[in-house]
Amino acid sequence: MSYLSYKSHSNTSGDEVRFRPRIGITMGDPAGIGPEIALKALAGSEVRSLCEPVIYGDAAWLRDTAAGLGLRVEIVEVQPRDTARDAQSHSHHLPHPSDPGDPSDIPAAPALYVCQATAANLRGTRLGEVSAEAGKAAAECVIAAAQDALAHEIDAIVTGPLNKESIALGGFPYPGHTELLAEVAKTARYGMLLLSGNLRVIHVSTHVSLREAIERVRSARILECIRLGSRACQDLGIAAPRVAVAGLNPHAGEHGLFGSEEALEISPAIELARSEGIDAIGPHPPDTIFARTLRGEFDLVVAMYHDQGHIPVKLNGFDGGVNVTIGLPLIRVSVDHGTAFDIAGKGVAREQSLIEAVRVAVQMVSSRRTHPAEPSTAPQG
Amino acid sequence: MSYLSYKSHSNTSGDEVRFRPRIGITMGDPAGIGPEIALKALAGSEVRSLCEPVIYGDAAWLRDTAAGLGLRVEIVEVQPRDTARDAQSHSHHLPHPSDPGDPSDIPAAPALYVCQATAANLRGTRLGEVSAEAGKAAAECVIAAAQDALAHEIDAIVTGPLNKESIALGGFPYPGHTELLAEVAKTARYGMLLLSGNLRVIHVSTHVSLREAIERVRSARILECIRLGSRACQDLGIAAPRVAVAGLNPHAGEHGLFGSEEALEISPAIELARSEGIDAIGPHPPDTIFARTLRGEFDLVVAMYHDQGHIPVKLNGFDGGVNVTIGLPLIRVSVDHGTAFDIAGKGVAREQSLIEAVRVAVQMVSSRRTHPAEPSTAPQG
Repeated sequence: MSYLSYKSHSNTSGDEVRFRPRIGITMGDPAGIGPEIALKALAGSEVRSLCEPVIYGDAAWLRDTAAGLGLRVEIVEVQPRDTARDAQSHSHHLPHPSDPGDPSDIPAAPALYVCQATAANLRGTRLGEVSAEAGKAAAECVIAAAQDALAHEIDAIVTGPLNKESIALGGFPYPGHTELLAEVAKTARYGMLLLSGNLRVIHVSTHVSLREAIERVRSARILECIRLGSRACQDLGIAAPRVAVAGLNPHAGEHGLFGSEEALEISPAIELARSEGIDAIGPHPPDTIFARTLRGEFDLVVAMYHDQGHIPVKLNGFDGGVNVTIGLPLIRVSVDHGTAFDIAGKGVAREQSLIEAVRVAVQMVSSRRTHPAEPSTAPQG
Repeated sequence: MSYLSYKSHSNTSGDEVRFRPRIGITMGDPAGIGPEIALKALAGSEVRSLCEPVIYGDAAWLRDTAAGLGLRVEIVEVQPRDTARDAQSHSHHLPHPSDPGDPSDIPAAPALYVCQATAANLRGTRLGEVSAEAGKAAAECVIAAAQDALAHEIDAIVTGPLNKESIALGGFPYPGHTELLAEVAKTARYGMLLLSGNLRVIHVSTHVSLREAIERVRSARILECIRLGSRACQDLGIAAPRVAVAGLNPHAGEHGLFGSEEALEISPAIELARSEGIDAIGPHPPDTIFARTLRGEFDLVVAMYHDQGHIPVKLNGFDGGVNVTIGLPLIRVSVDHGTAFDIAGKGVAREQSLIEAVRVAVQMVSSRRTHPAEPSTAPQG
């Protein structure tokens, strides 16, 4: 599978230039901080030096948001396939910062490309408020970006934050991006990888009650997570990932004193993964495995439930964490925060997580370009 | 209730001197790193400047351990009430480091006081191995120290790490110190407070399976934790603790989408605590509350289960964490690590957690001396 249409990555003279993937960035809920952080991230030079970014959003809303923030940028409406050409026709060429002598196709700071990806009417939308219109617009942008990624018009998606109530009111009753994307991509096997610095965590379950999460601690599911997480680490440039599998119970059950899931479900999954050549070990006591991973002992932790993995990730990097949906036939990276309705429109939202998400997406595109995905192993059920 | 026998805290001339509490330090499992870290901590000047320390252990084993480590110290066998007198009779007087002109009753570095607190025969004990003799010795030291604390011969206990298998083999089938101490003190209401820097966490349950932990998320139990934790913060010098109560489920249940315990059990407990004048708020999403607490928003987190609290504490300070048993009629602080059989006898164990535990114990003794405990509120069942 190729994610790339190399032709579009050439400069005016037709020569092949340094590869810069095309990244679609969804604006998220317009009533939240998504549009603000997207505009701030693209107004800086880092994202534009890494990739050809295009925001999937509402052009008028983004123009108003930029004006409200006092950002001097030009909002240019494009189709995703047009970004490179458009940059040329506007003659917004800048030398590459690290290579000042070369001509380059990096657009100048003021021109931000926006793909009008929603038919929702946002005239009545108010910052910081739940609404059907805002939810509809946010969901439509995600769907448009996902479809363009599946059609290889863009190389990856980076998503801004959604509000679940709003998307449900807008006709998209999904717990979050992941489930929505899985449906667009017609995929049933997927997982979420959280990244924060050198801490990478995949979860056996996420948005379910803790009671239900315990029910999902099953051998087949854990094995699938180990496989997906190990493959995702390879996409992130780690050739032979060292995978630490956490226990479910305190002290990983203390040899059966505090629960049996380690012996009945987790250990068998680790054995199966090892028999497939994956360097998986555990189950480890949950309260020490993250510190050990941060010290460099492992590349990935398989967490048994949402907070087991989210607590250490959020402690490790409250601003710069990102998450990656894995197992989908497209690359998707997300900011690791919510819509922050309480600070929407105040100009104080930080774009670090979005910039980091773009960095990770670019890394994954490059890595898959060098090492295309192998045929996936057969699911266990 | 007074923990102090002020008479013993006088110098040779009978004048009252700077208050230094008497702290009993249990050696922990002799086959682990407990004796080593106790000797290292006491060989330095910090612990001896903070308190009158006495190790509850096996004098011969400690003498051999010190020799094995190449520590130049004198092991002096004492009864706990003898420490000050003994220091004087040995004439091991040092000027106080921070007050070089004054005479002081701080013993010289080489004299470490050991209360022979076990009848176990350790001649066959091997480092790094589980054994009945080692377990018996470790448990007997804890019991002796607890009895002396209840009799006000010492002001607080700081405990070295136990091995659960060994103490069970030695005739003490307890999950850990806390349960053993609760039995010695004939107490049924107690909790564990973890400390790591400015992060303080009390747990609704600890050494039970995650399934059982969910069953223990009950309003009366949570309220008791809020009360015990708030009182413990006061013992630690915080006059009006701000108490954050975590949820059980991801996102604190997301308004009932992922579980009902927040609405049915946690919120009612918070309301009751507030009606008693405790500044408790929540339930908060578990994955962000610890970072917020570290940034200074709260003084205490009430965690719903072992790993919810232990993961952030261990990430925050892997070496310097301590835990405090609260609700007992004695002050007990413990190192926040295990016996580390794998490095026992190698001389590489770090004493930071033990030193921090002594600091916290001294703080609690001083605080209770200034603000004696109020009559406890009636238990809720």
